[in-house]
Amino acid sequence: MVEQLSEAERAEALDGLSDWDYDEARDAITRAFVFADFSEAFAFMTRVALLAEKADHHPEWSNVYNRVEILLTTHDAGGLSGRDIEMADAIDGLVE
Amino acid sequence: MVEQLSEAERAEALDGLSDWDYDEARDAITRAFVFADFSEAFAFMTRVALLAEKADHHPEWSNVYNRVEILLTTHDAGGLSGRDIEMADAIDGLVE
Repeated sequence: MVEQLSEAERAEALDGLSDWDYDEARDAITRAFVFADFSEAFAFMTRVALLAEKADHHPEWSNVYNRVEILLTTHDAGGLSGRDIEMADAIDGLVE
Repeated sequence: MVEQLSEAERAEALDGLSDWDYDEARDAITRAFVFADFSEAFAFMTRVALLAEKADHHPEWSNVYNRVEILLTTHDAGGLSGRDIEMADAIDGLVE
């Protein structure tokens, strides 16, 4: 069973994820990514899909042309967990 | 320049797209697709992405695990156009 992060754990994790915003209503983290065009945006989505499938941890996400918005939370934990932090780090690794 | 469909053209087009809903606020059409799992959902998204890129007409869409929601409208036309109807037909063709 994956456990929801405590407030202290969450604060520490968010310190290390400067590009992500905390969504209090969902106990989730979100980040928007902007690319040159749809082709680049979908290439990024494909890489995220592979990460997600490998980790068996899937994002809620949307795309409009060159823009991709990602929300991470852990349904089984009822909110943000360490798995979301790991996934956010891995996604950041794709665009650094 | 792509032209927005007239009310009569829209009504006729929607008659042929029984699985799509009309979103009046956006002058758009929407459809939700449910698959067995994320892998199948993303495989479908990849096929839609190829259609979209080929037609240079891109959806607004979101995905949560096995569910994909697609909205089609034509920004350049200020609402629904024949390009959306063609794209909806092509997307339907992927799942029939």
